[in-house]
Amino acid sequence: MTTEQAKASDPRPRGRPRLDIDDNDVADAVAELIAERGVEGLTFNDAAEKLSVSRATLYRTIPTKEHLLAVLLVRSMNEMNELVADALKRIDDPAEQLLALVELQIDAAIRMRQYMPLFFGQGDMPAETYTRWQGWARDFEQAWVEVVRRNMQAGTLADGDPVITARLLLGACLWVSRWYRPTDRFTAEQIRQSALDLVNSMVPPRAAGEA
Amino acid sequence: MTTEQAKASDPRPRGRPRLDIDDNDVADAVAELIAERGVEGLTFNDAAEKLSVSRATLYRTIPTKEHLLAVLLVRSMNEMNELVADALKRIDDPAEQLLALVELQIDAAIRMRQYMPLFFGQGDMPAETYTRWQGWARDFEQAWVEVVRRNMQAGTLADGDPVITARLLLGACLWVSRWYRPTDRFTAEQIRQSALDLVNSMVPPRAAGEA
Repeated sequence: MTTEQAKASDPRPRGRPRLDIDDNDVADAVAELIAERGVEGLTFNDAAEKLSVSRATLYRTIPTKEHLLAVLLVRSMNEMNELVADALKRIDDPAEQLLALVELQIDAAIRMRQYMPLFFGQGDMPAETYTRWQGWARDFEQAWVEVVRRNMQAGTLADGDPVITARLLLGACLWVSRWYRPTDRFTAEQIRQSALDLVNSMVPPRAAGEA
Repeated sequence: MTTEQAKASDPRPRGRPRLDIDDNDVADAVAELIAERGVEGLTFNDAAEKLSVSRATLYRTIPTKEHLLAVLLVRSMNEMNELVADALKRIDDPAEQLLALVELQIDAAIRMRQYMPLFFGQGDMPAETYTRWQGWARDFEQAWVEVVRRNMQAGTLADGDPVITARLLLGACLWVSRWYRPTDRFTAEQIRQSALDLVNSMVPPRAAGEA
């Protein structure tokens, strides 16, 4: 909403001070508040305060707590898209691509653990965010499936249905959001390394026999 | 509650018709109703009707919808305990034990998919059921960790922290409860087989080199 077009359709009356609220600032504020108090503890008031705007100003752009959270969810999807696209562009080898996806996903599960359940039906999501999320999830899974497929073709993963295999691997990574605790004895780095070791150890029977 | 002691402490007045409600029947009724209408659609009335008892009679044994669900959750825990104990007694080889655990877990994730989220904080659980679940989850994970540890010692899984590795593998299996749909193109058997193939393909680097 920073284009001239968006400004032209802005319903804010002339003469008032410009009080643009940047989506990135909102996402940062929401993420910080969630880190401090959890999703349950997030309030509209606290968000306005953290953004140094009045409740009324915030309300004009973002009408509900669900919409506040949605700004963060949308940014998270965009972030993941960029990270994955970048990794797949940077890396050619399918086996290395898979390891990069696993690493990104474990990191995301840890970083987003407090609000990840929102993506999976806990709490409400504005309808348009939900639609966006469904499309995103489909495309995101497709990226994983393609990498898994290439590994099966290259003989670096056991043959099988690439969709099922991708979902099993994604599940191992996503589930980390359930059990990771910063106060636990396991560091994010240890979990990441274990996941990489595990995926690295997946050698299809023929390749193992040839080795 | 079928022992003489339990009967002696039964607060039901003498002379009334015996209206024992068997936990197994309750669990069956609740599971059937959930399969038909989902957890949200489960009502106290429907449960009483399915059990052929009056609302009042059901209420005397099981005071809330949460307690109804808890009967099913407790039976699920007991079932899993029996299945795992039986598999570990029946099978000696650590690699085969791990495959058996994976198979059991995939099947459970599919069978219990509609109410599994209750175990993970969606919806309320009676306090005593929650305490029981916490203890159960700890012991259950411990069984997985032991099998993973034995596989690492036997050289059938890459070395690593057995707790992290067990959680990653459990996550792959548990996550199936999120994405499995009976109407989908993937059958339970295909998913089970893919998971077994994937775990079977995990060969620690040294073993692969020796092969």
